[in-house]
Amino acid sequence: MLNPDRYFSPVPEVRQLARRLYERIAELPLVCPHGHVDPRLLAEDAPFPDPAALIVVPDHYLVRMLYSQGVPMERLGIPTRDGTPVETDPRRIWQTFAEHFYLFRGTPSAAWLRHELESVFGITERLEGGSAQRIYDHMQARLSEPAFRPRALFERFRIEVLCTTDAAGDGLEWHQRIRASEWPGDVRPTFRPDLAIDLLHPGWAAEIERLRGLTGEPIGEFRSYVRALESRRAFFKSLGATATDHAAVTPFTAELSARAADEIFGRALRGAASADDQRAFTGHMLMEMARMSVDDGLVMQLHPGSARNHNERIYGRFGPDRGCDIPLRTEYTINLRPLLNRFGNEPGFRLILFTLDESTYSRELAPLAGHYPAVFLGPPWWFHDSLEGMRRFRAQVTETAGIYNTVGFNDDTRAFLSIPARHDLSRRVDAQFLADLVARHVVDADEADQMIGALAYELPKRAYRLGA
Amino acid sequence: MLNPDRYFSPVPEVRQLARRLYERIAELPLVCPHGHVDPRLLAEDAPFPDPAALIVVPDHYLVRMLYSQGVPMERLGIPTRDGTPVETDPRRIWQTFAEHFYLFRGTPSAAWLRHELESVFGITERLEGGSAQRIYDHMQARLSEPAFRPRALFERFRIEVLCTTDAAGDGLEWHQRIRASEWPGDVRPTFRPDLAIDLLHPGWAAEIERLRGLTGEPIGEFRSYVRALESRRAFFKSLGATATDHAAVTPFTAELSARAADEIFGRALRGAASADDQRAFTGHMLMEMARMSVDDGLVMQLHPGSARNHNERIYGRFGPDRGCDIPLRTEYTINLRPLLNRFGNEPGFRLILFTLDESTYSRELAPLAGHYPAVFLGPPWWFHDSLEGMRRFRAQVTETAGIYNTVGFNDDTRAFLSIPARHDLSRRVDAQFLADLVARHVVDADEADQMIGALAYELPKRAYRLGA
Amino acid sequence: MLNPDRYFSPVPEVRQLARRLYERIAELPLVCPHGHVDPRLLAEDAPFPDPAALIVVPDHYLVRMLYSQGVPMERLGIPTRDGTPVETDPRRIWQTFAEHFYLFRGTPSAAWLRHELESVFGITERLEGGSAQRIYDHMQARLSEPAFRPRALFERFRIEVLCTTDAAGDGLEWHQRIRASEWPGDVRPTFRPDLAIDLLHPGWAAEIERLRGLTGEPIGEFRSYVRALESRRAFFKSLGATATDHAAVTPFTAELSARAADEIFGRALRGAASADDQRAFTGHMLMEMARMSVDDGLVMQLHPGSARNHNERIYGRFGPDRGCDIPLRTEYTINLRPLLNRFGNEPGFRLILFTLDESTYSRELAPLAGHYPAVFLGPPWWFHDSLEGMRRFRAQVTETAGIYNTVGFNDDTRAFLSIPARHDLSRRVDAQFLADLVARHVVDADEADQMIGALAYELPKRAYRLGA
Repeated sequence: MLNPDRYFSPVPEVRQLARRLYERIAELPLVCPHGHVDPRLLAEDAPFPDPAALIVVPDHYLVRMLYSQGVPMERLGIPTRDGTPVETDPRRIWQTFAEHFYLFRGTPSAAWLRHELESVFGITERLEGGSAQRIYDHMQARLSEPAFRPRALFERFRIEVLCTTDAAGDGLEWHQRIRASEWPGDVRPTFRPDLAIDLLHPGWAAEIERLRGLTGEPIGEFRSYVRALESRRAFFKSLGATATDHAAVTPFTAELSARAADEIFGRALRGAASADDQRAFTGHMLMEMARMSVDDGLVMQLHPGSARNHNERIYGRFGPDRGCDIPLRTEYTINLRPLLNRFGNEPGFRLILFTLDESTYSRELAPLAGHYPAVFLGPPWWFHDSLEGMRRFRAQVTETAGIYNTVGFNDDTRAFLSIPARHDLSRRVDAQFLADLVARHVVDADEADQMIGALAYELPKRAYRLGA
Repeated sequence: MLNPDRYFSPVPEVRQLARRLYERIAELPLVCPHGHVDPRLLAEDAPFPDPAALIVVPDHYLVRMLYSQGVPMERLGIPTRDGTPVETDPRRIWQTFAEHFYLFRGTPSAAWLRHELESVFGITERLEGGSAQRIYDHMQARLSEPAFRPRALFERFRIEVLCTTDAAGDGLEWHQRIRASEWPGDVRPTFRPDLAIDLLHPGWAAEIERLRGLTGEPIGEFRSYVRALESRRAFFKSLGATATDHAAVTPFTAELSARAADEIFGRALRGAASADDQRAFTGHMLMEMARMSVDDGLVMQLHPGSARNHNERIYGRFGPDRGCDIPLRTEYTINLRPLLNRFGNEPGFRLILFTLDESTYSRELAPLAGHYPAVFLGPPWWFHDSLEGMRRFRAQVTETAGIYNTVGFNDDTRAFLSIPARHDLSRRVDAQFLADLVARHVVDADEADQMIGALAYELPKRAYRLGA
Repeated sequence: MLNPDRYFSPVPEVRQLARRLYERIAELPLVCPHGHVDPRLLAEDAPFPDPAALIVVPDHYLVRMLYSQGVPMERLGIPTRDGTPVETDPRRIWQTFAEHFYLFRGTPSAAWLRHELESVFGITERLEGGSAQRIYDHMQARLSEPAFRPRALFERFRIEVLCTTDAAGDGLEWHQRIRASEWPGDVRPTFRPDLAIDLLHPGWAAEIERLRGLTGEPIGEFRSYVRALESRRAFFKSLGATATDHAAVTPFTAELSARAADEIFGRALRGAASADDQRAFTGHMLMEMARMSVDDGLVMQLHPGSARNHNERIYGRFGPDRGCDIPLRTEYTINLRPLLNRFGNEPGFRLILFTLDESTYSRELAPLAGHYPAVFLGPPWWFHDSLEGMRRFRAQVTETAGIYNTVGFNDDTRAFLSIPARHDLSRRVDAQFLADLVARHVVDADEADQMIGALAYELPKRAYRLGA
């Protein structure tokens, strides 16, 4: 059974304060400005498949941990690109997962899953080898009920708005279908043009081709490429998008001359771009994206510093997003200087920064957010979206940047059923953080009341321009 | 109202221990070995102007936060270099500040200001839009009283010694006036030759000219430049200085040959120095400064790792020290090796290191201080001079370097009225840190009694050679 | 007197939980898979000499702290290489140490020594100037008793297995003598070929000569050098070794062509290797060592990131391991990519990573261990083997990698008598860590029961393949 005081301090006075703060916001609607839910889910509203396909196979947090302890990916039913056969019986996948669930002790994955099983499915038994099939049966029965269809859950979860993440060359058909339906759920795309910008990606040329098809731009040189991206941004915006998102190995930014940009782009079209070209082009395109955000008001998000597909054997057989991305040391002060000097003082511009390198919280990110009007800090990302990770973020950021230069929580998940668990955990950590400030007389109780509302609900709406 | 147990643990046993430790040192005199108070203040002893000019306009901690949330610097009355008009009504500046004071929730600026308002001015009302003018009136009335003149406050604050920060080319006239007056307050200069050493600074040539005037040295080549600096150090020392201070982008040190130093210096005199020259020269001059410290006994402080004036638009309009300096990743182990190998074992030499890169606390700084006799660690600097920042410093440094290789507290402020607030906060954090060690039986109660006295009073006096 | 609840939380509920967890494992045997005890100690089983020679002189943690506060190394009796005379009276060395023992307040050295004095020698008085000679007399009396001989203490300490650290060119005579004796203590060597791999080390040629003598390989080119190392590994294994250990300035790995390796090796034999050669060769040999581990099953340990002998004056006079090694910023994600791509998915391979750069815990090490089957994380190393250091490690690693990708504790010490103190401190910190998770309902009480057993006993045995 989930303890109602979980994740709060064991100090009675603080626990009491945390509980009171948490109760103020526990039932507020969920604002989900950044995540990876497939919009098709809510467009089709089909029943979810079995527990293994729902919970285990797509979750790289779970898969990587089992793999790290010697469980072959094949036994978890991860589909292969090279035809290697994999386990297809969902019951056996679920059993393997359950037998190794003890590995997650002390991790957020365990916290999320326990919350999900209990609050979505009503399961209070612990998941382990002996209970695996009973729990499977219970879940499977629930999944066939209408109340467990995606839209019904969306409403039951009190999701006020859900933003997905979509490539520049995505036609947004599912988003259009959702909008065209009578269902009032607020689902919005986010413009993520990484593929269109990564000149060396094997899928780049195909993405450019899609952009040609969608925009009618020839994209024979840099200028019409930029026009095509502007056109896609406008289309995304017409379907409700309020933000863009960008990944990069580093947050390097630097403006190229028009001629240099054109030459690099030309080489890329001929398949002759170099790694230096790629780096320079990415740095230039971040500048371009900031410029476009100044113009169209889309909030810019930047997620740098992941060495993707570090394990080439796994990447070769199973493809991307299988838990083998490893963070890199990341530098913001020098890298973002060109972009911030050009756009960081623009009233309309907003740049939300994320990191996988916690050493930058107090050293670079909080000072940047505590000075530049454009800069806000995204919540702890990925590996750091956890009890201790969130605690470190607040402890290292707040004293320099306050809470009002941060943007509240992102669930950042493709696991739709875990959304309430993730928000609940974040709200508890924020309540505990503020309770501790009140108990030590750093802020007054009525200030904490306002702060918890800001963190849980107001800041994300305001930061992502989602009304409010 | 300030809570008497503020910043202590909410665990009753620990709170009790912290309170007892704090009470031992709460009334000890303030030792202020490093700060930025203008000596003219204490030389002229004129009444302070209005609350806005006193509190808001000169405090880059405050200004940057409001700017980060969209308040134009002009509305805060920050003087411009380009003639752009700014708000001149101190009441309106104060009102703007008060309306945004909620932004500082959870920051040390809020803690300091609340303490300052209550303990200096007797104001217990919270600063916000509705109370702004009442508080302004109250402060303004106090500021016209003799008891609120700088010297009276200096005595009321129980400041035992106050060190200012002064350029090599500063004639120290205000210091001389203080000494010549009958007032017994102990105010001392600190020798900070950054401008004289920064070959590419626009003000370098003028500073060299001032050095010529003050010392009679021709400074046509490196040797007489060095003699001029030595002469200025002697003059600072004659006015009570016990320390020097140095900023640098990195702590890079390396000795140049006499010829190379002379060539670079020659290029600088001709306005032809390069960025490489600047870097090499700074590295060499840190070595020279250490050598002089071995000779004259002035304690050497080093504050590296700030990218000054990161925001060029703000710098262009408002000049330096407006809250747009952003920290850089900093490396000490390799960079300081030449200097420490040359001087780190010298009995008379003392080097106090500071950082804006907290990742160096446990990795580089504590091991260096825990080995080299010359090396001591300065307190958490700037962004890290805060409750959590000080906690992290002690938690990450003590287990390797102990407390006796650290130098106690620096208030490091130009805000004279905030000095007691800053020392009080630091003393509370130290008391809490030690209370936690006692409660967990890491140190005994009588050991903590000695340690709190060392941290609050003895270590700074000893480290900076200020008697004791 | 040691408090039975030392190092536990002052929160009553948590203290209670920690005590209960600690009691479960307090009496378990000690598994010591990595350390620096001299095997001669247990081969000869001679009485220990005086307290100074036993406790002070060989302990670089103690020596460096006293040196950092101005106590000359000579006064501590540290033997010199240049013939400088040093203090030879152990009573005076002990007196000097005792008078400065207050410097260690808040450090693990103080915690270890207090535990050692009380639990090994029955001394409850605090060590300080006034008690120094009394304590010396008491210890000296004990040391002459048979119960204080190394083997008797080994048994009293309940050491189940003790692994030493031995150069590739070490004949392991002492290990052979222990095995040949009737004493049943389990003492094993660890293969540490750093000297044989460091082409620029002044002792490299002599080590190669020893390898020739021990293996009969000509070692005139790279291939027979590799064969010689393989042969030594087999010999170490025959004497019980289950692991290797490797130091390197960085964890750089990269495979050389056979020809390039041979050319570098040839230059080294001729005394003509460059710093670039050294770096490339080290990177290649880490790959080779991983390959051999895949073949022979020896667990590979990697300890990178220390700038050895930073203080050249101390190194020149006193030699290595005198407390003047300073950590370096360290990068794992890119540096280990070649090695992990080649061997990281091999079922038989195991790589235990250590760091002196805590910023890598959450950023690089936990993600690597939480994905690669081969990667495990060693405990907090050296400066970080402390209360707060271990707390930070668990707090920063567990949420990504869990506890089952870590390997429990290493005492890593040459101070034989401190072994129980170090294990006890580690067990207490783990109990406290888990108690906090239980109190905040992150894990259940019965899960914590299993976890504490894993951390204190099962994980090290399993990770180092020491049975179980």
